[in-house]
Amino acid sequence: MDKQITTRAEDYSQWYLDVIDAAELAEHSPVKGCMVIKPYGYAIWETTQKILDEKFKATDVENAYFPLFIPERLLKREEAHVEGFAPEVAMVTHAGGKKLEEPLVVRPTSETLMYEVFSTWIHSYRDLPLLINQWANVVRWEMRTRLFLRTTEFLWQEGHTVHATDEEADARARQMQEVYRDFAENYMAIPAILGVKSESEKFAGAACTYSLEAMMQDGKALQFATSHNLGQNFAKVFNVKFLDQNSTEQFGWQTSWGLSTRSIGGLIMTHSDDKGLVMPPRIASIQAIITTIAPNPEAAATVGAAANELSAKLKSAGIKSRVDARELRPGEKFFAWEKKGVPVRVELGPKDVAAGTCILVRRDTGEKKVVAIDTVAAEISALLEEIQKNLFDRALEYQKAKTISVDSWEDFVAAIEAGKFVHAHWCGDAAVEAEIKTETGATIRCIPFSSKEEAGVCVKSGKPSNKRVLFAKSY
Amino acid sequence: MDKQITTRAEDYSQWYLDVIDAAELAEHSPVKGCMVIKPYGYAIWETTQKILDEKFKATDVENAYFPLFIPERLLKREEAHVEGFAPEVAMVTHAGGKKLEEPLVVRPTSETLMYEVFSTWIHSYRDLPLLINQWANVVRWEMRTRLFLRTTEFLWQEGHTVHATDEEADARARQMQEVYRDFAENYMAIPAILGVKSESEKFAGAACTYSLEAMMQDGKALQFATSHNLGQNFAKVFNVKFLDQNSTEQFGWQTSWGLSTRSIGGLIMTHSDDKGLVMPPRIASIQAIITTIAPNPEAAATVGAAANELSAKLKSAGIKSRVDARELRPGEKFFAWEKKGVPVRVELGPKDVAAGTCILVRRDTGEKKVVAIDTVAAEISALLEEIQKNLFDRALEYQKAKTISVDSWEDFVAAIEAGKFVHAHWCGDAAVEAEIKTETGATIRCIPFSSKEEAGVCVKSGKPSNKRVLFAKSY
Repeated sequence: MDKQITTRAEDYSQWYLDVIDAAELAEHSPVKGCMVIKPYGYAIWETTQKILDEKFKATDVENAYFPLFIPERLLKREEAHVEGFAPEVAMVTHAGGKKLEEPLVVRPTSETLMYEVFSTWIHSYRDLPLLINQWANVVRWEMRTRLFLRTTEFLWQEGHTVHATDEEADARARQMQEVYRDFAENYMAIPAILGVKSESEKFAGAACTYSLEAMMQDGKALQFATSHNLGQNFAKVFNVKFLDQNSTEQFGWQTSWGLSTRSIGGLIMTHSDDKGLVMPPRIASIQAIITTIAPNPEAAATVGAAANELSAKLKSAGIKSRVDARELRPGEKFFAWEKKGVPVRVELGPKDVAAGTCILVRRDTGEKKVVAIDTVAAEISALLEEIQKNLFDRALEYQKAKTISVDSWEDFVAAIEAGKFVHAHWCGDAAVEAEIKTETGATIRCIPFSSKEEAGVCVKSGKPSNKRVLFAKSY
Repeated sequence: MDKQITTRAEDYSQWYLDVIDAAELAEHSPVKGCMVIKPYGYAIWETTQKILDEKFKATDVENAYFPLFIPERLLKREEAHVEGFAPEVAMVTHAGGKKLEEPLVVRPTSETLMYEVFSTWIHSYRDLPLLINQWANVVRWEMRTRLFLRTTEFLWQEGHTVHATDEEADARARQMQEVYRDFAENYMAIPAILGVKSESEKFAGAACTYSLEAMMQDGKALQFATSHNLGQNFAKVFNVKFLDQNSTEQFGWQTSWGLSTRSIGGLIMTHSDDKGLVMPPRIASIQAIITTIAPNPEAAATVGAAANELSAKLKSAGIKSRVDARELRPGEKFFAWEKKGVPVRVELGPKDVAAGTCILVRRDTGEKKVVAIDTVAAEISALLEEIQKNLFDRALEYQKAKTISVDSWEDFVAAIEAGKFVHAHWCGDAAVEAEIKTETGATIRCIPFSSKEEAGVCVKSGKPSNKRVLFAKSY
């Protein structure tokens, strides 16, 4: 049953799938391109929802729910938007045993339907800002799918806001990008590069897309989340208007922002190793697993009781713990929880119980430590913080080591081939951006906020440039 | 803007829609039969999810997520099931710009897809029980829709379990019915009648359906939730098998159970009155609304500050409170929160602040009470408990007053016409049950657990019967 996890060096793509399989996170379903998210994988999404939902609400966002289906005519109204999404939509054409008069699109995202409704909700500046979020499933018909990273149906949240001014909308888009950064870095322990997308890479219909990019262990970039300043593009198409304080009719300024189950793919690929999943403590549904070691039934009873007592103690200290008292060889149990990436393993056998101690093992470094049962809750709490920090630091170090600034086309090509994040000058021409993509497979991930004004020439066209942008291959 | 709510006596159906509109719970969407759940309505669903999710998990159920789409061949496999659902499914026939080889059904419920997957998860008795729940949207193409009560798309949870024995499966189905009862009665303050469905009314494919029926104010029944003992029906079709302790292959025994956004329709219709929504405190997203009364700007500042201080105090006492400091006439504010059914209104004006008092007004009875600011948190906590109890008692009294036992066909017809719950003898013949439905519109809501063995004759056929069943018209 227990097949070996392929190593990253051997086959990175297979390693990713093996880690998911070994940790029982998700699997392919009988429906092409759709996945089944298994309980241990879904728990990551539940934690994500809990953390983000609280952060959204702290900024006065309210949840609502809009229909799964969008009449085709609505999707078609915003030109850039329909161009972006039309090729990948699923259509309901028959229902209730009849052909529908108008086909319904299964939502790929909800701007069009929501804004049609928003236009009836908003009358005056007093109705603004309107701050709505929705937790939902969306469908985008993808040709090549991969568990979590790209699936035909995925789960996400989509926030949609309307404001009285451009400045306020832009501030909201940036604010939500910052919420995502907080979540990525402080919970998922994923260092994020914040910036703005190039015109070619921005969301279909947006004025400007803010993104967070993360580096995976193969050097490819993963777009962790995006936040769009939509300007008045959709407002003009969907008549999202309000009377301002002078009773003059104005179009609203809008934003939309989303994070999906794709982020779980990023989580897996940032921290996991050749032994399996590695979970940052703050996102882990089990932070400490107490594995009993019992050579005989009497020992099993004593150790089992001590383990349950210890688990209760840990829970009351706010540590998500569980007991594994199955009758298996200790090694088998250790191996099972290692594959599931539980941050701390507590080993408890008859000798430990007699001595009033237990052994703590870190998943991230493998370090072992004997500690007194009396102090174990405090020890684990401290250890969890340490592991959380270590995972972030390790990922940041990796990202820095695999990031380079280049000034020549030869160096650029070599760096991309080597799987690096590349800071390079670009002339701003979309045609040149497209050429670079065709020749190297690299795209502009973002124009990083950290990129300083600096005179230079485009690595490809040789034309002048005043800022480096971030190039990489991506998921 | 503020249109009057139609009274129940005038037009019950319109009253229901007016209450929803006035409280801003939901509205019709641009998609036929689908609704937009607005923030104040969605908050009810969020509270429902939080309460039930905790209760499910306390019984070792884990959440997972299965695809929205079901290949048509899977849905067709269980005969009774497909007969029940085929007429009302929505079909995706085109996606990614192409016609699909096999149409995909948008899930009306997930038995078929889940059990196809379960069959690969379960190998031995050690894998049992399997206890899975999913929070999801489902689609059933309905001809006549009504906000919350019957919509083409609705939100629900669907629990699905597999057990080694019939007894264990049946106990689980009953256990979940009990979880729903607890939720209905102790949170939504809706008295529930527990029982089992007749063969004609049970779930398509189930061995037995346990249900909870509630009485609405027009005397009609609403099925609040259902829990099905599926026997081995699906297991045999989907090959859900396990090796028992003797290494003999056995089919699993299954259950499924669900509660949907329909329950919110039941909540509205159980408690609301001609002034609008009435929310039971334990399900209310706002339990106490502090409305400021300020004749001038200085008063507004003083009262506003006192209101915020009071709100903080209430929040730290665990009361969900909010301040309404809008510059509106007090009457307008009172009216707005009355329509939203907030259990307790706190009126705070300059004289109150000076005197260190405020006025509490109960939504359920309209009673007013002057209380000292110092004791207000304790007063409101007690009041919320009282309101919770009063709403339940009131609904139970109403249900009892509109329930009757009859022994003749004339009395039966008259009682159903009068909008009552009717306990009557029935011979057990489905043809007779169908006749009764055709002639009176009443169906067997359930065979109540409380119904005692008792010799009698069927009100319609005159044949012998040993138990009364519950008849009513229903939503």
